[in-house]
Formats: sequence, structure tokens, C-alpha cells
Amino acid sequence: MHTQLTQPACWPEFAFTVDCTAREKGVAGRCGTLQLPHAVLQTPVFMPVGTQATVKAMTPEELEEIGFRLILGNTYHLHLRPGEQRIAEQGGLHRFSGWNGALLTDSGGFQVFSLKTLRKIEEDGVRFQSHIDGSQRYFNSESVMEIEHKLGADIIMAWDECAPLPCTDEYARQAMERTHRWLLRCISAWKSAGCRAEGGWPQALFGIVQGGTVQSLREESAQFLAGQNLPGYAVGGLAVGENPEQRRQAIEWSVRHLPAEKPRYLMGVGLPVDILDAVERGIDMFDCVLPTRNARNAQVFTSRGTLNLRNARFQQDASPLDSACSCRVCRRHTRAYVHHLFRANEILGLRLTTYHNLAFYHNLMSEVRLALKEERFAAFKSSFLAEYLIEDEAPETGETRDAAP
Amino acid sequence: MHTQLTQPACWPEFAFTVDCTAREKGVAGRCGTLQLPHAVLQTPVFMPVGTQATVKAMTPEELEEIGFRLILGNTYHLHLRPGEQRIAEQGGLHRFSGWNGALLTDSGGFQVFSLKTLRKIEEDGVRFQSHIDGSQRYFNSESVMEIEHKLGADIIMAWDECAPLPCTDEYARQAMERTHRWLLRCISAWKSAGCRAEGGWPQALFGIVQGGTVQSLREESAQFLAGQNLPGYAVGGLAVGENPEQRRQAIEWSVRHLPAEKPRYLMGVGLPVDILDAVERGIDMFDCVLPTRNARNAQVFTSRGTLNLRNARFQQDASPLDSACSCRVCRRHTRAYVHHLFRANEILGLRLTTYHNLAFYHNLMSEVRLALKEERFAAFKSSFLAEYLIEDEAPETGETRDAAP
Repeated sequence: MHTQLTQPACWPEFAFTVDCTAREKGVAGRCGTLQLPHAVLQTPVFMPVGTQATVKAMTPEELEEIGFRLILGNTYHLHLRPGEQRIAEQGGLHRFSGWNGALLTDSGGFQVFSLKTLRKIEEDGVRFQSHIDGSQRYFNSESVMEIEHKLGADIIMAWDECAPLPCTDEYARQAMERTHRWLLRCISAWKSAGCRAEGGWPQALFGIVQGGTVQSLREESAQFLAGQNLPGYAVGGLAVGENPEQRRQAIEWSVRHLPAEKPRYLMGVGLPVDILDAVERGIDMFDCVLPTRNARNAQVFTSRGTLNLRNARFQQDASPLDSACSCRVCRRHTRAYVHHLFRANEILGLRLTTYHNLAFYHNLMSEVRLALKEERFAAFKSSFLAEYLIEDEAPETGETRDAAP
Repeated sequence: MHTQLTQPACWPEFAFTVDCTAREKGVAGRCGTLQLPHAVLQTPVFMPVGTQATVKAMTPEELEEIGFRLILGNTYHLHLRPGEQRIAEQGGLHRFSGWNGALLTDSGGFQVFSLKTLRKIEEDGVRFQSHIDGSQRYFNSESVMEIEHKLGADIIMAWDECAPLPCTDEYARQAMERTHRWLLRCISAWKSAGCRAEGGWPQALFGIVQGGTVQSLREESAQFLAGQNLPGYAVGGLAVGENPEQRRQAIEWSVRHLPAEKPRYLMGVGLPVDILDAVERGIDMFDCVLPTRNARNAQVFTSRGTLNLRNARFQQDASPLDSACSCRVCRRHTRAYVHHLFRANEILGLRLTTYHNLAFYHNLMSEVRLALKEERFAAFKSSFLAEYLIEDEAPETGETRDAAP
């Protein structure tokens, strides 16, 4: 199987086209087409998180059925288990996980920095201890690029320092400058590999804007990155403790200096309301563990807000999870049944809520794209929120990204 | 939804037709067609076990996709949680669980007797304590018939005493005689309900042959049951500690006195080899938790025996779970990937093994039916076993039925 994949092939190159940009007042959102070696898809897009080579509790077929074409893998987790070498020997992460669509791998920066006591930051990189077996590990620009090269995602993220919030302006500057120095080394390593995965297809490197919640740093970082002429850019260092207003500002300060013709990815965000805020500010790509993680705690996203189906009030509720949803689960199952499954600790319970939540996010993005195209994003956002906030139980948020355990 | 189901409808009646009976020497197997209110299916048939209103880790769509049309529900478990009343209010077990095919419910006898210290057998019935909340419960013929009436399965099993093996001949006789007295009361209760479920469709009552491993008792029990002219008969009290030879004998002693024109169901059995033994002796219906339970421990059934995919030797094994299998899992995934999923405690691992194991059992039964029709069952059985025993790791067996925890 491996041999077959390394044969020369005419892989589609990375390309991004902005198909339309909102002309509504106060709306900087846009619709685009993202062409990747393994898929073509429309933006703004939500990417489910497949931490350990699987979107938890979902098969690849189910993700395809909902309509996803691009999912995430986590470099930190995959490096520790089963290891990039073993995945490369199985033909890369696509083939290993049976996923026919496109993949993006993060750099492991968020996970390594979330280890706190188990890690040591040096100028060159970060020493850390595996949470699985306690072994000593070391990530720097070159090692992370090598891991991502072997995993073989369509989009790879640069190695960066994700500073926790709040932090001092001084620390935010240091982390940002380190991230920039590391980025230059990532670019060299990426170019040395011919900008290709071990499997032979093109890999697009995205740089990550840092700078905490400081305007001057965010702007400096975005300008520095824009100067590197990379295939795409991410806004990082968010969903780590800031409030919504700080996040909106950090996005605005970053986006205004990023080139309009390149895709923009907001890492680890978020709830539907956060996504709408960010789309409005020109973000094209999203990922977040909330739809899948909260599903495993019986929480479902609906057009009228989130609900926890363990709650006794759903015991005899014969309505679907979301009466406005037409996903496979909502067409077949009732809240009463899913309530029973969670009370009885049956795996099918979290399977059904996970599927529905991902379908909810996918449908939200379809509606977002349509509203942008039809120049009615502002109206869509306010009517969505008016409905959404009716019954919203204020979901568990906690970490919105898959930290190291 | 409930209202809709209780409307009068022209439900198909229960019917069983023997389509062919083997004329091979030493083979008493036969192929049949079982018509139930919610499905028509071919026998010999294997029924997956849906203990708590779900076949663990499977959706109804997946069961349909594999080809199952008849699954089990457990009266004991469903009575305790969520309770038959709540299920009836949701339109019965079919509708509650989103299952469009047919259902069979057991009587709870096996589970209640497996409680051992928590239960007390009386002439009338059995007192026991709920394993969930410790509450006092009481099962007798009338209460079990009422529960099964409310659950609304297509086939309902009579309330019986499943004596553990080994036991004295004297105890086996007492349990058998009690089972017969209880059966007469079950028949009365069933007839009082018009032989129909609360939802309005016909329910077929099956009696259960008991008698342990004693020839005279098995024969007496089968003769007594045959005299009741029920829609079908089960061979019970097996898969509870007997050896394979004792089981084969108990089946033969029972089957020879059961009417050829009625379906025969061997409860709780078993491994592929046990199923082939029983088909050869004229059994038409099977259920067993092994394909699903063992799957959750990473054990897969293959044409060359069982394998445990947690084993390190599968770490780099790029072959499918069973190279002779064409199920959805075997077409897409490798042993190396499933090995990784189990090592990483990912839910997808047990989803894939569960799906495959059920497909394996379903395919086995298809091959069994074809071999019977083509008068080559003996040859099929010996070639299957020759291949199957090559690598068989001697699967965990333990309980083959879902006892009370």
C-alpha cells in the first residue's frame, strides 16, 4: 500500500480563491474555495478535530456523509502514539485512518505549552515529557516539520509558542519573536522537503500570528507573517483564556494585516456565536473540540441553544434532538431515547450526539456561506442568535482545544 | 407518535415455513422463512443482542446495512431501566429504539436466576433486587407477560426457570416442572391480551424447553411444550456451564420431540462452531453476546479463527481484519489502525470490531443457509472448521448471555 502511494502522481496543488467578499456594512466576511491535494471545499469551513487519528466516536464514512472534506490531526498526540514513523510506513495519516478527504495537522505547540510543569522552553525548542510513558521528548522547528512531513497532511502548521492568557506584554513579545524565528526555520525545513509530504503530494505551510491581546504585537506579527508569502495564515494564541471582546480585537488587529487572497484560520475557536463573530471579521477556517467533546457529556447543540440530554426533563420527550435539524440522528431518534442511552451508559448515546453536533456545525457553516453570498450575513447572524439564545443552557466550555491530558 | 402506532392496522401475522430440510446423512438442519409483524427473514438466523434497547455501539442503520432483520431486547434490563411503561408511552420498543425490523424479548429468567444471592425463588415467581438501585422487584408469569406486552416485541419468550449447570437431577426436575406450570399461566395471560402487543400487532409466544442435561427431562419437557401448540419453541438452560457434548445431546433430546413445522430457537449460543453443531441438529434461531462483547475487548472473529487486535504483532499489519470478509470495515481499515485505536482507547476501535464481528456472524449464517439448500452442509462445516481452527486464539467465552451485572 505504501509503495503505491509514493508513486509519482499528478496531485492537485494548493489553491485558494476568494469567491465573494461581503459588501454589507461592518461585515468583512468572505466565501472562498480551498483546493487541497485530497479535497476541494468551500469556506468559511469548520474542521472536526481528529486528535488521535480519529474524530472521536465517528467513522470516516459518517464524516463524509455529513459533508466534511477537511479534518484535523494533532501532531503532539500522533507523535507519541502511534508515532509518525509507523504512520508513514502505513502510507501516511490519510491512508492509516481510512480518510479519503483532506487533513490539516497542528504543530503540537498548543499541547506542549499546555503541559506546563512537564516542559521547558529553550531558544531552540521545547523539552517535554510524554504524558503516556514519561519519556523525554524534544520539539523544535525542524523536528516538528519532519513529523508533519511524515504524517502527510494537506496543510501543516508552523511550530509556534502559544502563550497562555493573561500574560505580561513583555512575555507576549518574547513568545511572538520566538515564534517568528521558529517560523523562518520551519520555512527552510519545508522548502528542503520540496514543500511535499513523504507520500509525494504538496503540503501547504501556514504561519501562525501570535502577540496575545496586545494590538501592536498582533499587528507586528501579522505583518511579519504576511512578508513570508505563505500559502495561508492562522490566528493563534486564542481560546486560551481571553474574553470575547479581547478575542474579537485580536482577530481584527491580525486580519487587517494579512493578505486578502490567502486563507485565514482561527485556531481552536469555538462556540457558534464565536464563529459568527470571527466570520464577520474575515476568518475562513475553524476547528474546535466542543461539538465532539460536549457530545460525550450528553450536550447537544440546537437551533435554540444547547441542551443536556441527561436532564430528567427529556425522559419522555419524543421530539428529535433539534426539530430544525434534518441530520440522520434527528430523522430517526428522540430525545427520550438518547436520554435513556446516556442514563444506561450506552455508547450509542454519545455516538448519536456526536454525529448530530457535527452535523449542526456543518449546517451552520453552510448557512453562513449562503448568507454571505446573498449579502445578508448581518441579518442571518442576528436571527440565528435571537433563536439560539432562547434556551441555551450555557454550555460547558473549558478548553476548546485538545490539550495534552 | 404513540397515537399513530395504536391505530388499527393490518399487521402481518406470525408464520413459519420450512423451505427445505437437509437430506444429507446425519444432518437434520433446515432452511425456513420466518414472517413477523415487523420483518420477514430467512432461517437459520443469528440475532444480535440489544440488551438495553441498543445493540451495544451499533446504530439501527448499521444493523440493517449488515442485513439483520430481527434483534433481541432483554426484559430484565428494560424493566429496570427505562421501564416498560415509559417504553410503551414512546410507542413500544421498536419505535423507542428507532428499529424498523423485528424484535424478540426474552423473559428475564436467565438474568434473574443469574443474580444468585439477590433473588428468592417461590412457587409463584421470583423476588429479586434491582442491580441498579437495590429496589425490590417481583417477576412471575403474569408480570413478565405484561412487561413483554408493553415492550411489544414480535416474539416474546415465556417466563421460565433457567437452572445453573451442574445441578442435581432432582433440582433439574423441579425447575422444569415449575417452568411448565409457569408456561400455562403465560399462555393464559398472552391469550387474555389477544396474543397482541399493546401497540396492536400480533405477538408470538415461544415456550422454553428445560430439563438440564438429563435425557428423560429434556424429552418430557419438549413433549409437554409440543402439546401446547405454540408458535415456536426454544431450547433453554444451555450456555450455562455444560460442555459441548452435553449441549449437543440436550439439543438432540429436545428437538426430536418438537414439531418440525415450528421454529426452534437455541438461547444464548454461541461460538461459530456451536452454531454449526446446532444447525446440524435442526436449530433455526440463535442469539449470543460474544460477537459484540468480545469486540469491545478487541477480539475479532475471522475465517481463520479469532484474533485479539491489541496484540503487538498487529502494530504494522496492513491487512484487513479478515481478508475473506467484504464488510464495510474490512474494505476500509487495517489491523494496524484498529490496533492503534484500541491502544489509544478510542471508541472507534470497538465500533469497528463490533461491526465486523456482527457482519462475520451474519455472513456465516448466509453461508449456512446456502450450504443447507445445496445439500452440502457437512462439507461446508468441515471446511469452515478446518480453516477456522488454524489460528484461533481460543476466544474469551465466559457468559455468552447478558447476565444481570
